[in-house]
Amino acid sequence: MKDLITELTLPTFEDVKSAHERIKPHIHCTPVLTSSYFNDLVGAEIFFKCENFQKAGAFKVRGASNAVFGLSEENAKKGVATHSSGNHALSLSYAAGRRGIPCHVVMPRTAPDAKKAAVRGYGGIITECEPSTTSRETVFADVQAMTGANFVHPYNDPRVIAGQGTCSREFMEQTDGLDMMVAPIGGGGMISGTCVTLSTIAPEVQIIAAEPEQADDAFRSFKAGHIIADDAPNTIADGLKVPLKELTWHFVSNHVTDILTASEQEIIDAMKLTWQRMKIVMEPSCAVPLATILKNKEKFAGKRIGVIVTGGNVDLDKLPWIMG
Amino acid sequence: MKDLITELTLPTFEDVKSAHERIKPHIHCTPVLTSSYFNDLVGAEIFFKCENFQKAGAFKVRGASNAVFGLSEENAKKGVATHSSGNHALSLSYAAGRRGIPCHVVMPRTAPDAKKAAVRGYGGIITECEPSTTSRETVFADVQAMTGANFVHPYNDPRVIAGQGTCSREFMEQTDGLDMMVAPIGGGGMISGTCVTLSTIAPEVQIIAAEPEQADDAFRSFKAGHIIADDAPNTIADGLKVPLKELTWHFVSNHVTDILTASEQEIIDAMKLTWQRMKIVMEPSCAVPLATILKNKEKFAGKRIGVIVTGGNVDLDKLPWIMG
Repeated sequence: MKDLITELTLPTFEDVKSAHERIKPHIHCTPVLTSSYFNDLVGAEIFFKCENFQKAGAFKVRGASNAVFGLSEENAKKGVATHSSGNHALSLSYAAGRRGIPCHVVMPRTAPDAKKAAVRGYGGIITECEPSTTSRETVFADVQAMTGANFVHPYNDPRVIAGQGTCSREFMEQTDGLDMMVAPIGGGGMISGTCVTLSTIAPEVQIIAAEPEQADDAFRSFKAGHIIADDAPNTIADGLKVPLKELTWHFVSNHVTDILTASEQEIIDAMKLTWQRMKIVMEPSCAVPLATILKNKEKFAGKRIGVIVTGGNVDLDKLPWIMG
Repeated sequence: MKDLITELTLPTFEDVKSAHERIKPHIHCTPVLTSSYFNDLVGAEIFFKCENFQKAGAFKVRGASNAVFGLSEENAKKGVATHSSGNHALSLSYAAGRRGIPCHVVMPRTAPDAKKAAVRGYGGIITECEPSTTSRETVFADVQAMTGANFVHPYNDPRVIAGQGTCSREFMEQTDGLDMMVAPIGGGGMISGTCVTLSTIAPEVQIIAAEPEQADDAFRSFKAGHIIADDAPNTIADGLKVPLKELTWHFVSNHVTDILTASEQEIIDAMKLTWQRMKIVMEPSCAVPLATILKNKEKFAGKRIGVIVTGGNVDLDKLPWIMG
């Protein structure tokens, strides 16, 4: 995969604009909600960009759709492939379905049935592997060799980053200026897209990344000045376990103002409070920004803050405050 | 209370328009959401009016605000009073707080602490009674005698009905024509307001009331042609346990096209499915319309259907599909 990445160039805001034109028929321009409760609690004006209402339930459909609909006719026939078992797999399956091409997803045979069913529900073709990196890579190589499908990485791909950048572009059009934008950081695809867009159209907006304490590799990378990848971090925010890669590190190290972290309990509390007060279903991963805002109120007081609510795909049978 | 009611006249659409002007500064014009998943499932176009995003978390704030802000200065000083322990108590407390007048709420001492805390959170003053009708009426009479507060019934009050009627007025402005409007029915306040509005501005729209099988007093009243009140019905849709009264029966018997019912399991399934697919937190009560639509698809196929999602105040620690 290293070889693939060195061929790729950094996405620009022109790529974001092209991506937006390309994906508009396939995504929602999601609404921005506000909550007087949270505004009073923080002493700030907070705007929530609700990507939990997005197609396939998460912002990832932006990047996935850009990759799928950017393929040439010839190339598209072979389909696309990935090895995510989360929102990227759902989103890529959705986008491929819209274009009428196959989407191959390599998933551990131990993945929850609900996740497999969700991918199949969007038309994805699952090939199971053993739950190890070696098996995943071997099986994925086999699938690619057999099908010739185009690999779409969940975040370290300029097409994906440009797609994610459409979110903050919409967000800035929907609000009347912001002081800060806060988004969760896992592999860094959403944050990188946000950097591409804001550094061009609103360079005055501070970009804050929010990360679980228990998967704080981006925080430590940011402090150290080079990528630190954790081995199997454990957090309720399961979308944020993956490490930064070359492309996303470029944007994080050059454009992010700060990275803040929150504990597991702070994440769960913020998630539950949002469900209670805003009546929206959001994933643990997207409660991390609000958790960091609530624990650092002095940093945010008096500001106009954009929060990207990244997704809403939750197992409703296993809610963290009920599981304890 | 009979004496009070016979003095009252039926609300008209003029009252709805006045109510709308009066309450606009205190309520949200809630968004209308759609879901391609549910459209495909039913073979219809369904529009969801999200009163779960309303101030105080439910449509009831419309009627409560109309009652509170319609009081003369002199009269308002004495405050308002009610004996609901649900969304009406929250909404009346919220509206009274906005006007800066006291709101007295008589609640059984056995009511959940969470409900008491929520009422107090909106500024309501709670007087506890024993969990019996006799005790509630005695205590309520005492509170009213001591304070002179204005009684605002949860639904059998023309000011409340006119306030609820503003919801379908907004809804018709937000959609490009509907064939049917479906709303849950408990005491009938929302349905009556809907009847007042639609019978004037869109008499072609069928009005369907949706009710739990286990609290189907409105359904049986509708068939019998007179009010049948159940003694202590038991349903997960706890906002819908109360019986019709004179005013609401007038509208139900004259303007409602049909009443459909759903079982407890159908209500829970529809509720969970909405959380899963639409990523919104809604109460069991407002899953009843969707439950009746899903079980009567042939009746709804090909139609443009408005569904009023009445509220989102749920105990997140006790979800019906997790409790079993």
